[in-house]
Amino acid sequence: MGRWQPNARGRLTRAAYELYGERGYEQTTVAEIAKRAGLTERTFFRHFADKREVLFAGSEDLQEALVGAVTGAHESVAPVDAVTTALEAAGAVLTDREFSRQRQRIIDANTELRERELIKLARLAAAVAGALRHRGVPDLTASLAAEVGMAVFKVAWQRWLDGTGAEDLRGCVREAVGELKGTTTRT
Amino acid sequence: MGRWQPNARGRLTRAAYELYGERGYEQTTVAEIAKRAGLTERTFFRHFADKREVLFAGSEDLQEALVGAVTGAHESVAPVDAVTTALEAAGAVLTDREFSRQRQRIIDANTELRERELIKLARLAAAVAGALRHRGVPDLTASLAAEVGMAVFKVAWQRWLDGTGAEDLRGCVREAVGELKGTTTRT
Repeated sequence: MGRWQPNARGRLTRAAYELYGERGYEQTTVAEIAKRAGLTERTFFRHFADKREVLFAGSEDLQEALVGAVTGAHESVAPVDAVTTALEAAGAVLTDREFSRQRQRIIDANTELRERELIKLARLAAAVAGALRHRGVPDLTASLAAEVGMAVFKVAWQRWLDGTGAEDLRGCVREAVGELKGTTTRT
Repeated sequence: MGRWQPNARGRLTRAAYELYGERGYEQTTVAEIAKRAGLTERTFFRHFADKREVLFAGSEDLQEALVGAVTGAHESVAPVDAVTTALEAAGAVLTDREFSRQRQRIIDANTELRERELIKLARLAAAVAGALRHRGVPDLTASLAAEVGMAVFKVAWQRWLDGTGAEDLRGCVREAVGELKGTTTRT
């Protein structure tokens, strides 16, 4: 990012979201995104591999944050708690609900993007399970804690966007974790 | 299915699996599947919408079985137990591990099929959550029990195929449910 283009990435992201919302993801070209942002296509491709990448650019950061939090948890912490604590931390970072809602509307409207989103979640689960196994957690426990963690996050995320849960994502994650612990011990 | 074509569906399925395994899913045509099965393309299309459908034909049965079991569970049964009991019942029906392994190998080798499989699981979760809400289960509890149920099933399924869990899928589901209850109450 050159000094002569302050926050080019942010401008490109905003322009892409606007256009995806206005005319649809499929109908939008990279040339149009660059033009709307007042930048060149070349600049676009310095920041994103393609127009889909604009919507998924945060995935790697999220994965790194989750894996880092799981890896860094004290060894006395139970696997599922290491995962849910990591998810709460991730929830605290994602604060712009309107932006997330806009993104979700774009994704919901396109089959390819919905598929990509599901794959992203499956990869996150695999990465978290790997981090747990690396801590010496047995395979079944690791896989289950990771997959259940993703289930909790998915529900929390949906409720945050719907406005049916707490005001912030972290609160929605906490509600879902509380419900999980209640639900599985109720009988 | 005419009387003059006993088990055409089964023959087409076996032929498709063989060809997908031998030359790859993408490289196989419906004409080749029909030929290998000793049937016509027309017969193929009486049984399946396309060549992908051969691999996902069981999805609707599975969904019906799960939703039926959840709907039919006694009202005193806790939501998550209604789901796990339904999954155990589904596990008891899927008994041919070699067939399931063959299917998984075909799916793992193709991006489109992997995506389709993830979407299938997401739809199952939505259907199960819907069945719970229909029973009057509050939204958060319903969504969470359904998503956690799918997480359990995914892990059990993988372990059954890997041969790292119990010999039968039902046993693998039981192990995962036991681990879930232990995991979430350990702290």
